[in-house]
Amino acid sequence: MNRSGIVSLLTDFGTRDAYVGVMKGAIAQINPSLTVIDLTHNVPPQDIAHARFTLMTAVPYFPAGTVHVVVVDPGVGSDRRGVAIAFGESAAQPTGYLVGPDNGLFSGVLEQYSVLAAVELTNVQYWRESQPSSTFHGRDIFAPVGAHLASGISLSTVGQAIAPNSLISLPIPPLTRQDNRLIGCIQAVDHFGNLITNVSEKDVADFAWVALIADRALESVNTYRDRPSGQPLALIGSHGWVEIAINCGNAQQIFNLNIGDPLQIVLEQR
Amino acid sequence: MNRSGIVSLLTDFGTRDAYVGVMKGAIAQINPSLTVIDLTHNVPPQDIAHARFTLMTAVPYFPAGTVHVVVVDPGVGSDRRGVAIAFGESAAQPTGYLVGPDNGLFSGVLEQYSVLAAVELTNVQYWRESQPSSTFHGRDIFAPVGAHLASGISLSTVGQAIAPNSLISLPIPPLTRQDNRLIGCIQAVDHFGNLITNVSEKDVADFAWVALIADRALESVNTYRDRPSGQPLALIGSHGWVEIAINCGNAQQIFNLNIGDPLQIVLEQR
Amino acid sequence: MNRSGIVSLLTDFGTRDAYVGVMKGAIAQINPSLTVIDLTHNVPPQDIAHARFTLMTAVPYFPAGTVHVVVVDPGVGSDRRGVAIAFGESAAQPTGYLVGPDNGLFSGVLEQYSVLAAVELTNVQYWRESQPSSTFHGRDIFAPVGAHLASGISLSTVGQAIAPNSLISLPIPPLTRQDNRLIGCIQAVDHFGNLITNVSEKDVADFAWVALIADRALESVNTYRDRPSGQPLALIGSHGWVEIAINCGNAQQIFNLNIGDPLQIVLEQR
Repeated sequence: MNRSGIVSLLTDFGTRDAYVGVMKGAIAQINPSLTVIDLTHNVPPQDIAHARFTLMTAVPYFPAGTVHVVVVDPGVGSDRRGVAIAFGESAAQPTGYLVGPDNGLFSGVLEQYSVLAAVELTNVQYWRESQPSSTFHGRDIFAPVGAHLASGISLSTVGQAIAPNSLISLPIPPLTRQDNRLIGCIQAVDHFGNLITNVSEKDVADFAWVALIADRALESVNTYRDRPSGQPLALIGSHGWVEIAINCGNAQQIFNLNIGDPLQIVLEQR
Repeated sequence: MNRSGIVSLLTDFGTRDAYVGVMKGAIAQINPSLTVIDLTHNVPPQDIAHARFTLMTAVPYFPAGTVHVVVVDPGVGSDRRGVAIAFGESAAQPTGYLVGPDNGLFSGVLEQYSVLAAVELTNVQYWRESQPSSTFHGRDIFAPVGAHLASGISLSTVGQAIAPNSLISLPIPPLTRQDNRLIGCIQAVDHFGNLITNVSEKDVADFAWVALIADRALESVNTYRDRPSGQPLALIGSHGWVEIAINCGNAQQIFNLNIGDPLQIVLEQR
Repeated sequence: MNRSGIVSLLTDFGTRDAYVGVMKGAIAQINPSLTVIDLTHNVPPQDIAHARFTLMTAVPYFPAGTVHVVVVDPGVGSDRRGVAIAFGESAAQPTGYLVGPDNGLFSGVLEQYSVLAAVELTNVQYWRESQPSSTFHGRDIFAPVGAHLASGISLSTVGQAIAPNSLISLPIPPLTRQDNRLIGCIQAVDHFGNLITNVSEKDVADFAWVALIADRALESVNTYRDRPSGQPLALIGSHGWVEIAINCGNAQQIFNLNIGDPLQIVLEQR
């Protein structure tokens, strides 16, 4: 795979301290000509599901061969694996590399696009220090490995091959269809409490549709403003997924629902 | 106009989500060698006047031929126009391009510098998708058009010419002079509640001056510390405009004034 | 000294306004091919000790010949000096340049690494304006001088040589040793209230150790999780310094200690 020379960073480190700046320094020490782009560093602390969805929706907007370094890592210091993954098969899909802890962060991308190969990060030669700190693998392992991959070394160089199906997935059930019903679930909750489902824009294209959730039936609308303030609604967000929201309100609190909880979409001919 | 290879971004998207990162990805997909500089993404939500002033004061500090992409866009999804503008005439002025919604964001820059040409963004070939999302034109239209302009295509390529005087302006009256009085107004309010006027450093250069506002006369000082805590004052801010402030206080709340409200400056020979 | 082409920025300007963006514009006007990396702009306002420690711990992670521009500047507008410093001697140490106000910001780096030379910024030719604003020397002096240094001009060009020992230091007593005791102090407090000492990882390497602080003896642990919630502990932070913390609590408030306050470390053979 060709490389874009771009490394994206997604973490829960915040921007009050210099953790992110230090990761960028560590990348520049390896290759100062790489371009680093921040996705966000304000993932809610240790919220793997939030990072998983953010990464999944951002990946298509990056050049082929971009390296995405993601560090939301509640298990740092335990024996969870560090991994690097090559994904995306053809000109028709985004392609790139994923680097970070093996805790489900990458499962969204991997449900959307093909896995080409995966390795466990075992080659300390590509780490910053052979004895990394027990708390900051972003700086000591993931950023350096990402910088080396973005500079062109091969995936197999940074560690030992592992079976792609051994990578950890978040327990989000796949979307299924029964007749004119899509049986889905909530896969993420954003900062506003909007409930983002695993039903994509493509799944409902060409249909009129209604969302059934928590004993209510919500007609689909085009924008928040199509419903009065305080009223629930269903629409397709700019991320391309069906979203349950309350105009000027917090759907998660009102519906008392969370990641993995079910919903159905009824499709009707237009 | 030559291009600097730099794109600046100014939005009200915040940095909690990956919206800004995704815009940068979309730019890199078009041209990964461009440099992107954030002005700020913490414009108060939908505060066009705040963004207008921020942009106006930042533009002179950027290289000639920089493309400024600004997305504060309460009308997204309505029929407001998207526009691109070339500004700045000569080596003596900043020059560059402005890209964003036509809602007054650019009127500050255009009061300061010459408009060379303006177009409505009608050429979908330079958008990310010919069917952009209804809520995220920053990603789907403005960032891509900005990236293309920064890469060297001509303004006339991205859309149809429009009359510069058809561009929307914020209703901020121009500064006038009567004898030794400047008749001005408030053009912006910053996060601290400081009232920033449309009287520039150059307008008062070589004079002693007093600001008349809300039935008070405020002597001009050099720094906040020249007045006791809690006392109002007038000074020239680092942005180069006369500012009404309260040392350790909020002038907007105390004076109960807002954008467009009048003030006068009395000029006296030194 | 060779230059890395990288400028790091560390300020207390926050990211709500465009101050940082404008500094980056001013750098790009001088040399658009430089790479700018943010350390953080959320240093607590005017907290020189916090910036000093942040810079000191970040410097080793940057390429040799990086220029670090630091603007935490409560004395702006007074007669405090602006300075530039070359530091680091050999391949075994980080090397680079420091640019900013002479108020103690750089004393942490200079305790760790050799000073090669220091100048007062007196050559207005390398400032943005010969009459800088009285409040924004980051934009008008420090960023431009940093950009010129990163582009390759010599230190002696930007100002007049000064004696390195005339540079202002924060009053943090040096670490001393008596038999098996290290006599140290607190050199920084982070956002979580953790007390960071001036005892480094190297000072305690190969020993078992106990921290004596505020009449308590704290066994050293490897991670926060090694102690119950609410309990105090001592460990080596990812920055490489001994840190006194309370698991899920605020050590500064509980111990009522601050920068400069003493502690001792008792070393024992393993």
